[in-house]
Amino acid sequence: MSMPDLQKSPDARRVAIDKVGVKGLRYPVVVQDRQRQWQHTVARVNMYVDLPEHFKGTHMSRFIEILNRYHGAVSVDRLEEVLAEMKSRLESGRAHLELDFPYFVEKAAPVSGARALMEYQCRMAASLADDFDFVLEVNVPVTSLCPCSREISEAGAHNQRSNVCVTVRYREHVWIEELIELVEQCASAPVYALLKREDEKAVTEQAYANPMFVEDIVREATVRLRADQRVTWFQVECENFESIHNHSAYAQVCWPDAGA
Amino acid sequence: MSMPDLQKSPDARRVAIDKVGVKGLRYPVVVQDRQRQWQHTVARVNMYVDLPEHFKGTHMSRFIEILNRYHGAVSVDRLEEVLAEMKSRLESGRAHLELDFPYFVEKAAPVSGARALMEYQCRMAASLADDFDFVLEVNVPVTSLCPCSREISEAGAHNQRSNVCVTVRYREHVWIEELIELVEQCASAPVYALLKREDEKAVTEQAYANPMFVEDIVREATVRLRADQRVTWFQVECENFESIHNHSAYAQVCWPDAGA
Amino acid sequence: MSMPDLQKSPDARRVAIDKVGVKGLRYPVVVQDRQRQWQHTVARVNMYVDLPEHFKGTHMSRFIEILNRYHGAVSVDRLEEVLAEMKSRLESGRAHLELDFPYFVEKAAPVSGARALMEYQCRMAASLADDFDFVLEVNVPVTSLCPCSREISEAGAHNQRSNVCVTVRYREHVWIEELIELVEQCASAPVYALLKREDEKAVTEQAYANPMFVEDIVREATVRLRADQRVTWFQVECENFESIHNHSAYAQVCWPDAGA
Amino acid sequence: MSMPDLQKSPDARRVAIDKVGVKGLRYPVVVQDRQRQWQHTVARVNMYVDLPEHFKGTHMSRFIEILNRYHGAVSVDRLEEVLAEMKSRLESGRAHLELDFPYFVEKAAPVSGARALMEYQCRMAASLADDFDFVLEVNVPVTSLCPCSREISEAGAHNQRSNVCVTVRYREHVWIEELIELVEQCASAPVYALLKREDEKAVTEQAYANPMFVEDIVREATVRLRADQRVTWFQVECENFESIHNHSAYAQVCWPDAGA
Repeated sequence: MSMPDLQKSPDARRVAIDKVGVKGLRYPVVVQDRQRQWQHTVARVNMYVDLPEHFKGTHMSRFIEILNRYHGAVSVDRLEEVLAEMKSRLESGRAHLELDFPYFVEKAAPVSGARALMEYQCRMAASLADDFDFVLEVNVPVTSLCPCSREISEAGAHNQRSNVCVTVRYREHVWIEELIELVEQCASAPVYALLKREDEKAVTEQAYANPMFVEDIVREATVRLRADQRVTWFQVECENFESIHNHSAYAQVCWPDAGA
Repeated sequence: MSMPDLQKSPDARRVAIDKVGVKGLRYPVVVQDRQRQWQHTVARVNMYVDLPEHFKGTHMSRFIEILNRYHGAVSVDRLEEVLAEMKSRLESGRAHLELDFPYFVEKAAPVSGARALMEYQCRMAASLADDFDFVLEVNVPVTSLCPCSREISEAGAHNQRSNVCVTVRYREHVWIEELIELVEQCASAPVYALLKREDEKAVTEQAYANPMFVEDIVREATVRLRADQRVTWFQVECENFESIHNHSAYAQVCWPDAGA
Repeated sequence: MSMPDLQKSPDARRVAIDKVGVKGLRYPVVVQDRQRQWQHTVARVNMYVDLPEHFKGTHMSRFIEILNRYHGAVSVDRLEEVLAEMKSRLESGRAHLELDFPYFVEKAAPVSGARALMEYQCRMAASLADDFDFVLEVNVPVTSLCPCSREISEAGAHNQRSNVCVTVRYREHVWIEELIELVEQCASAPVYALLKREDEKAVTEQAYANPMFVEDIVREATVRLRADQRVTWFQVECENFESIHNHSAYAQVCWPDAGA
Repeated sequence: MSMPDLQKSPDARRVAIDKVGVKGLRYPVVVQDRQRQWQHTVARVNMYVDLPEHFKGTHMSRFIEILNRYHGAVSVDRLEEVLAEMKSRLESGRAHLELDFPYFVEKAAPVSGARALMEYQCRMAASLADDFDFVLEVNVPVTSLCPCSREISEAGAHNQRSNVCVTVRYREHVWIEELIELVEQCASAPVYALLKREDEKAVTEQAYANPMFVEDIVREATVRLRADQRVTWFQVECENFESIHNHSAYAQVCWPDAGA
């Protein structure tokens, strides 16, 4: 059957398109795991290419075909390979691949040692033109305890769950697990999926002993990330889901200024 | 122009439809306010009717026409009027109207008296067959402080924002503001949009002095709601966004058992 | 270390709690798959028990311990086992387990036969008191094409993606895949992750040849589900994300009337 | 009462913070409306300032106090005034204010002239350092009809709701209503809240007569925005909620390249 290929017809409006492709596709992926080598999870996937001004349209089905061939194993090395295939099969100068997925790490409670999986929402955003660019984002839930509330109150201090979002570019591989550990050292206390009573005592006391403003958390993370020679660019955001308000406290540092 | 009215054609499958209509329409509404008489807000609206088995379809545009005529003022009295018009214009035996909207109450901080608006997400679900049914839901964010954590720890206690969702049927009018006040008495402390330093000290100490499990919060609310002669049915749910976990603690009471 | 167990202390408010436990925990699970036996995915998990009026609180950490022991394989048979353990370890009369997860099915395009994975958001809600209750929900995206628009227009007809949500109780095992197939027969056309040009022609023409109101889709599904001897109760909802409006058309049938 | 002001104490980590403040606060606002002068709506608000490296923390309650004083009327002129007050009261070099809100426009159906309100989700992001920067974003739902599907099929063509997100900087005032009208001219057809049967016929035929790829929609908008002398920078994104897939087609143009 011969059918017209409208997408290949010329376009006279002289508008090059920065990104065109498929968005919000959910797909099972396998991600590199420091402990267990590979981890099965489910990603939300975006795949885009640029489109020169003289082409009318891209070929959407090819994105899915490429994804199909690679979903067995998404690792940082293979992302570049996927992007190269996108560029080639879609005849474009730049390709973008974005993956959002929950990532699980087995974590031991601080006193009992009881183990359970903790979820960290992650994102990989890679692109390839002449050079390969790779950005890794990890969201780390932590506890923050307010220094002001502790200082002025006769007993107790308001505390809450916070989300710390760290985004990095690096010149040498950095594990998701390393970013999680780095962030957990910057908060009043880590959070856990499973805590026995002796653990709850420990994390309550740890948080009370380490009061941190939202500003402190992003600064502590900044100090550590600036000192990591592998990291070439980063952004740290912290959002405290305030226990005394119905809104969040928020802070953000981007280093060096240019980026994202 | 004469166009066929497919919706009026007969249907032979013998399936009556429980609800059919429009869903997820966003619309400005005006809601009764205890202090200021009326409050402008924006609702997400669902409107449904039942459809007897012999009709092929309903007339979707009529729902919007009815909504248009009434959006100037949504009050409990008028809901019944809107529903009656839905039944009549759509030739149905039962009509449903659901409104989700943020509702704002000016609240004074406990010590400084500083005033600011607090938002409470509300929902009204009304239906009319032979009888009129009206269900009011109010979501009240509060602080909860863990009694166990306080008891076993040398200093401090984990606490967090919680959402208490109260849903009621009543025989005599109950204000949104009354449900908010009732719930705030059941938690470790209320939350506020604006707290000065002296207020922060007060709510921190209040929460520490009133430790409450998620179970305590729903029980306290249950005791108060059972004692309110106006309330004929209720459900109370409390979700604690645990500061030491990445998941919630949850409790729910429904009274009497039948309902919703 | 001997620490007080506040949760075991008595409570005098005389309020039994219907559900108490953990909510919104994300966890990797393995689900039964008709083709490949088992499928790795990630679930959002809720676990609740009831709490008699004389107990002050439940033991939240035990829910996580139980989940940990079973996450290797969630099948319908094992759900009852998990619930029995929840009842026993938490000394309760009723236990509830809810799992929301994306489920993937490999699907062949209608003409080219090109294969790709399609995602279907599913939910299992199980409870155990004296009897075991199990409810399975499957969300099936489909295409709906408006019969009225087709009838009155000189060319074309508005169509859109719809979500059909089928929820069933059954006396004999029904596969997720069977519910997907049943629903896809009730719509104007199925949707696919991957369509080549010849497939796009086929599904466009199929949809145009099968115009369906939102009412038709729930009725077709009702006729098929009523005829399935294994199904003891069901609900079908269809939501059309109208291409000519910024809101949805919606219809729902519940059979028999009582339930869920 | 004299309480320590921890936020004012010095900080030795040498980390300046780019943004710190309150996030996700819901607040009623009044927005300029081309027809009716002012419109009541509800915004999600973020307010941030920068924090020099030598200050330990910002004063979160002042953000809310400032918001309180201005919520009566948010217009583009007053945004700069709010930002100047944020800079001054929080002793910072740069202030940011972000507002997300639904905006309603009364729209007449194309044939019947029946009128109803349509909702457009908008966003204003303003900042003030030495210069004032203002970015306006408007989301416009439209219908897109696939040219390829139309070309290759014997009858019909798949179509769907799309969201076009236009973001602009300008040197002279541009109304939200102007951006909506501009975008609606770039799609296969506009969408409406209320369509009578004669209108449904008209929009179905209009869409069929104007097939547009996601690429076409962003290009048409680009051509119009480039020609508007008031606009100094823009980004156009279009997302088609494909009726034949469970994912979206997406395209984006940013002009000139630098920005956002």
